[in-house]
Amino acid sequence: MTTFATREDCARADLQDPLAPFRERFVIPEGVIYLDGNSLGAMPVDAPARAAEVVTQEWGQGLIGSWNKHGWFDMPSRLGDLLSPVIGGHAGQTVVTDTTSINLFKALAAALTIQEADNPGRRVIISERDNFPTDLYIIEGMTAFLDRGYQIKLIGQDADTLEDLLDEQVAAVALSHANYRTGALWDMAAVTAQVHDAGALMIWDLCHTAGALPIELSACNVDFAIGCSYKYLNGGPGAPAFIWVSEAHQNRFWQPLSGWWSHRAPFEMSPKYDAADGIQRFLCGTQPITSMAMAECGFKIAAEVDQAELRRKSLALTDLFIELVEATCGDHPLTLITPRSHRDRGSHVSFRLPEGYAVVNMLVSRGVIPDYREPEVIRIGVTPLYLRYVDVWDAVAILADILATGAWDTEERRRRGAVT
Amino acid sequence: MTTFATREDCARADLQDPLAPFRERFVIPEGVIYLDGNSLGAMPVDAPARAAEVVTQEWGQGLIGSWNKHGWFDMPSRLGDLLSPVIGGHAGQTVVTDTTSINLFKALAAALTIQEADNPGRRVIISERDNFPTDLYIIEGMTAFLDRGYQIKLIGQDADTLEDLLDEQVAAVALSHANYRTGALWDMAAVTAQVHDAGALMIWDLCHTAGALPIELSACNVDFAIGCSYKYLNGGPGAPAFIWVSEAHQNRFWQPLSGWWSHRAPFEMSPKYDAADGIQRFLCGTQPITSMAMAECGFKIAAEVDQAELRRKSLALTDLFIELVEATCGDHPLTLITPRSHRDRGSHVSFRLPEGYAVVNMLVSRGVIPDYREPEVIRIGVTPLYLRYVDVWDAVAILADILATGAWDTEERRRRGAVT
Repeated sequence: MTTFATREDCARADLQDPLAPFRERFVIPEGVIYLDGNSLGAMPVDAPARAAEVVTQEWGQGLIGSWNKHGWFDMPSRLGDLLSPVIGGHAGQTVVTDTTSINLFKALAAALTIQEADNPGRRVIISERDNFPTDLYIIEGMTAFLDRGYQIKLIGQDADTLEDLLDEQVAAVALSHANYRTGALWDMAAVTAQVHDAGALMIWDLCHTAGALPIELSACNVDFAIGCSYKYLNGGPGAPAFIWVSEAHQNRFWQPLSGWWSHRAPFEMSPKYDAADGIQRFLCGTQPITSMAMAECGFKIAAEVDQAELRRKSLALTDLFIELVEATCGDHPLTLITPRSHRDRGSHVSFRLPEGYAVVNMLVSRGVIPDYREPEVIRIGVTPLYLRYVDVWDAVAILADILATGAWDTEERRRRGAVT
Repeated sequence: MTTFATREDCARADLQDPLAPFRERFVIPEGVIYLDGNSLGAMPVDAPARAAEVVTQEWGQGLIGSWNKHGWFDMPSRLGDLLSPVIGGHAGQTVVTDTTSINLFKALAAALTIQEADNPGRRVIISERDNFPTDLYIIEGMTAFLDRGYQIKLIGQDADTLEDLLDEQVAAVALSHANYRTGALWDMAAVTAQVHDAGALMIWDLCHTAGALPIELSACNVDFAIGCSYKYLNGGPGAPAFIWVSEAHQNRFWQPLSGWWSHRAPFEMSPKYDAADGIQRFLCGTQPITSMAMAECGFKIAAEVDQAELRRKSLALTDLFIELVEATCGDHPLTLITPRSHRDRGSHVSFRLPEGYAVVNMLVSRGVIPDYREPEVIRIGVTPLYLRYVDVWDAVAILADILATGAWDTEERRRRGAVT
């Protein structure tokens, strides 16, 4: 744990921070301390010019010819290849396409299809009660639709631990690498090995870790990974998501969302489906090019970042946030729900506070933007590419002031409507 | 049939054209006659400013708050409500989301689930061999994944006509309203009634008709319709697609792509899926906002158009194209593959020509941009909002000149790579 006794200590840490120059690559609005980059990452400085180019020039002037001339067709693969090393993969393992939910559907469909061929009879899918809900809803939707006896078992509901649920009935395990609410981090290598030992396939949701900390999908022998592009990857609002697939599985599976972009020769217009080889098989339909272009701006930055350095700063900032809150807001009923151990912590810090929703509103009114998550959770996203040590100091000072005055907004709690 | 003996006749028709002012709402590059608006519609004049606003202001400055403040959450419904009247529906029947392929998956899953409840045992899905391939691939993908005895029967392969295939085994029929290659148009009212008489459900793909001609989904008692936004609706490259669902079916079905945006209360973060009522149920995950904003620019124009007037001009222009080609290119082996009858024609005209690919390349080099579709088809998209009678005159004059010189490019035929 570092110790920052004064704001000057923070300013000094910023001066010595090797990642500090990255802040200049993003637009941070004047007077804002942005602690919600794990809902929607900040805008890269290059994004407006690229938006103008893709709309005015490529669409407006280039029209249909831009599909080839400006590389629109290749965007899912090009962006995938750019992103792959950031998550511990290489070219040909990732495509950027569709949404996290839909990519989970593809990954799970692939996992179940492979298991039905290799290990018939396995009919259990494991996830976690506290997983981000859309993951659970997709698993539920698929099992209901298939209607052939798949059961969902949840850690934290059907048993306390993964070990308690892993047996020879399990086809696949789908977990989020970092918990969207608490920031608790699974040990990817250990869990993947444990899942494989039980004969199951492993799907990781990287929404809250891709671009936030080092990930080693290949080294961990992961089977499938999915995630979104609009949090720590700064891809813009609702930017297309990604799917990473181990080479071992890419050509085995004929996925049900088999749109023409996954065809071996889409422009031959054959009435018969013939799956492309490789990661291309996990595409489906035509992608939203303007939003893809925004994602590329964020990915280009992510590809330059030293992930170990990113992790060091992320942990230093989350440590600092916890330290300062506990030192200055100690009289208030703030309960840390994020693991204190570095090993078990992602890149955000969450506190439970009975008046959390009202406090978040007051913070926002003073330019500090965290996130609120039911129930009663203040979530502090730490995005080391553009967050400074002084920002953490100032944010906690404002939080402490709000708590000390007791003057937080008493308006009725309502959905704030931020997207995780 | 109109008769235009001279270019001046065309110029006169343009002066009298009630739709002529719409051309000013789009950017048409200097020196270009754009005949591929049915692959990628032209850019609305408002699009660049809107792109700058959504990127620079809403994302860059508004950050996470823009989900509420700038109505990002409501975009799928807001755009759906804007589009619905254009296709003969009303508010609450359409959402703009995902891709055509994925929306077909949802619609077909809904249709099959409803039939399994109401008419168990029906295990045939009918489509058409000449349907746009992605529709066939999605049907194929779903039946393989479900693995419970669904069979696909194709008009033009398993029988010559729809009547020959319709029986008490049929669960659903999925057809494209206008054929992407020939422009042949199905009679939506008659076919839908025929399908219902056989106890099946009807899914229409409107990719080549939405925004091109009057569609009456409600009046025709259609069950489901899907389509893309980037052709005649001018929504921008890869703009999110739409799905329209009859109220009779909206709340009956629990769709398998059940992501959190289809949940009754997505921000309660319940681990249990609880489907939203209404068309919201057909959403899945977070949508690409920048591309959605571009789609809205196109839809706003579409919503202002008198659809009957649009149809009159579309038919006049396709008539004119056919007339002029046959009058001036008569010595060449151009074979019209588009129906001559107005009743059976969509909004494009296609000719088969052995050297079609090379001729298309020469046209493009002279500023005339049609589309090429395997095998040997020159496809002329007629977009009455920005195409003029003089454009048709000039395009055919250039085509006739290319054919007369015999000097078309002899480069090896290769995929041109335009997106339908």
